[in-house]
Order: sequence, then structure tokens, then C-alpha cells
Amino acid sequence: MNEVLQQLHARKSVRAFLDKPIAPADKAAILEAACAAPTAGNQQLYTILDITDQAVKDTLAETCDHQPFIAQAPLVLIFCADCQKWQDAFAAGGCQPRNPAVGDLLLAFCDANIAAQNAVTAAWSLGIGSCYIGDILERCETHRELLHLPEYVVPAAMLVFGWPTQQQLERQKPRRRAMEHIVHENTYRHMGAAELEAMLADNAGPRPYAEWLAAFCKRKYNSDFSREMSRSAAEYLKAFQR
Amino acid sequence: MNEVLQQLHARKSVRAFLDKPIAPADKAAILEAACAAPTAGNQQLYTILDITDQAVKDTLAETCDHQPFIAQAPLVLIFCADCQKWQDAFAAGGCQPRNPAVGDLLLAFCDANIAAQNAVTAAWSLGIGSCYIGDILERCETHRELLHLPEYVVPAAMLVFGWPTQQQLERQKPRRRAMEHIVHENTYRHMGAAELEAMLADNAGPRPYAEWLAAFCKRKYNSDFSREMSRSAAEYLKAFQR
Repeated sequence: MNEVLQQLHARKSVRAFLDKPIAPADKAAILEAACAAPTAGNQQLYTILDITDQAVKDTLAETCDHQPFIAQAPLVLIFCADCQKWQDAFAAGGCQPRNPAVGDLLLAFCDANIAAQNAVTAAWSLGIGSCYIGDILERCETHRELLHLPEYVVPAAMLVFGWPTQQQLERQKPRRRAMEHIVHENTYRHMGAAELEAMLADNAGPRPYAEWLAAFCKRKYNSDFSREMSRSAAEYLKAFQR
Repeated sequence: MNEVLQQLHARKSVRAFLDKPIAPADKAAILEAACAAPTAGNQQLYTILDITDQAVKDTLAETCDHQPFIAQAPLVLIFCADCQKWQDAFAAGGCQPRNPAVGDLLLAFCDANIAAQNAVTAAWSLGIGSCYIGDILERCETHRELLHLPEYVVPAAMLVFGWPTQQQLERQKPRRRAMEHIVHENTYRHMGAAELEAMLADNAGPRPYAEWLAAFCKRKYNSDFSREMSRSAAEYLKAFQR
């Protein structure tokens, strides 16, 4: 396995950081690798918010499902799907652009996450850990105000970065599902109850499968934060569905 | 610059391939690196369709905005945002899951693209080129039928892979925008006409900016394929907005 593959496999989420800043050169390397990522039509359909204000980090730690480690991260980046800047450029240049619609938003979501993952890979190569915070999609109204987001800009990924603690370095990376369940040939294949249980048995660990599944469904899927994510996402979508 | 950073910067899209297959071990390495990517709650909210049937590749080359090189790629992967499998698992396990909603879809879109970008990085480390095909989001009805997609599964990224031709290796990677326009500090900043023009002047190249912008708006944004992408995306969204 070459060095790149080894690093992609070794990388795991880091949620506890040393009290040590990220040097400007390292931060620049992370941001530049993000922007070197593939992007639809070389359009870079994203804007990256570099959260340097501790008060904003503190707020995000609360609004993103109460996760204090966000406030302690020396580098916090929000990758926004940006359908505003091209609209503005076209309008300023005398073109008659149509309004951004849901296809534009989804394409920008792709662009933003592709760039974000390059940032993750770049950081890891420098010894810097990271963690995605999916909760940035919650609390549309609060985050729009906090981050001054216009209606065609949606936070598509938040990443926190920092130097991993020893405990985090030693933590085992959670195993993924067996490939046969994730990769289907040519067409999508509905997995029946037995295959789904086989796929997820490892997640359940020592607990009885049905008990684990019920708890997971309650904690992750039927949870308040998950319902809030869809409420908030629907609010963001409104501008694209007019 | 370390080896990983160098590769992230060097990687560029490849749209012409040598007539040379991708060995099973290389394909496995690409897929395994994809699945090693960060994923929300270790849920892997995606299913990867491995398109091995030449007839399906031929169809995709037509339905994805008529791009013949898709049919010539030795490896074609479609990363689907999959909100079906967990729903099925919860239902089969006797839980009462709510219906997937737009937040679930967007989170799965993130997951799918994060995994896809690991596939891109892994492939490049093996000398294998790749290209994202955003057009996979078009033609909802056609692709649902072709790929047997249930209503909670949406193609979030298509990647074609192959060994680059010499011409592709020598092609210059398009430059990205200056960082000052892409990275905003703390809050989103509306860029005025002058800054937008400064940001995009390099894209225009030797052409007068206004002329280039008008042509780009027409070709990319007000184009038939772009309108089709949003029509199709809206069709996919319906299931998540009931």
C-alpha cells in the first residue's frame, strides 16, 4: 500500500485537541489543498468561512448540537455551497441569469464536500486531525444571522482541526461495513432483512442486534437533532424552490 | 510540500483513457479508500454502483450530456446518497423510523461526495486518472429505471476512471481563484462587481471579460443541461418532501 493509501486508511476523526495552534503555513496548506480539489466546470461553487473569532466558535459549539470541542479547535472552517457569487457576477456583468434552483444547490454541495475532503486529507498528512460537524446544517435562521449567509449560500460542511491528543491517536478507527454490502454491481439492490442485519452486526458489537438497532434509531434518526436538520434544510431549500 | 500535498495539487481531471483495464487489485484499493473516508456517525450513507455492463456505460454516455468518454472508461462508479438502506434496516428490525427528509438527503450527499473524493485521491496515487460527471443528477426518471434506484436513493456523484493518455498528462490543470476571494473571515462577504471581476478575470483569459462572462453564463448556467439538472433534482426531492 502506497503512502497516500496508507494515510487515507489511517485517518480517523479527532475530537480532542492539544492546546497548540496551527501555524499559518499549515493552515495555508490545508486551504490550498481544498481549493486544488476537482470542481464542476472549474467554478468553485463554494466559499470557505474561516472562523477566527472565539465568540463565533463558542456559539457554534452550542448551536451545533452542544459539542464543546468545537470551541477548542484551533481551526474551524465552514464550507458553504455558494450559489450566490456566480449569480452576483452574472448580474453585475449584464447577463440575465435564471435564479439558482435545487440542482445548482446539490451541485454546489458536491463541490463543497469534495473540497472539504481534500482539506481533511491534507491536514492528516501534516499530522493535524479533523472532524466533520454535520450539525452545521441545523438552525438555519441562527446560522444565517451569525455567518451573514445570503439566501443562496448554505453551509454544506463544517470541519474542525487541531493536533490530536495521545488518547485520540490511540483510539481505534470504527470499522466500516463489508464491501459486498456497499458496492452493488450495475443496479441498486434492495437488501433484505437478513443481509441488512449481517451488514450492521459489527456496529451492534456485543449487544443484541435488535436492542442496538432500536437504540441507534432513537438516538440518531428519530432524534431531535436529526429532525431539526431536516426542518432547517427545508428552510434553506425554500429559496431554491421559488 | 509532502507527497500527499503534492499529489492533491497535481491531480487533474482526465477525460481520455488508454485502452488498458484497471486491475482488480487497483479497483479494490480505490473502493476501499472510498469506504475509509469519514462518514456521519459511521453510517456510510451511500451505496456505490460499480457499472461493469458496457450497455449501461453506453447509455450513461448519452444520458449524461452526451460525453462519449464515459463509455470508454474502464471503471465507472456512481456514488448514491442512500437514505433507503437504514430506513429498510430500521423497519425490518421493528423500529418506527420517520420518513427520510431533506436533511437526511443532504447529509447523505455529503457522505457520498466525501467518499468519492477519497476514491479520486486513491486512484491518482496509483497513476489512475478520474473525472466527476455532475450530469448524473440529470434525467431522474431515466436513471431511476436504468439503475433500479428506489425513491430514497439519489445519484450524488459519478466518477469515471482510467489510465491517462500522454496528452491528458501534459494538459495544464486549470488555475483556481485567488484564495482571498474563496476564503472569507468569520462571515460571508458579498463581493461587489469589481471584486467579482478580479476573481474571474483569469477564467476569461485573453477574451474581454464581459464577452467571456456572457458566453459562460449562456453555455453553463442558462444551458439546457443546467436547467435539466434542477428539474431532475426537484423530482428526486419530492420523495423527501412529502
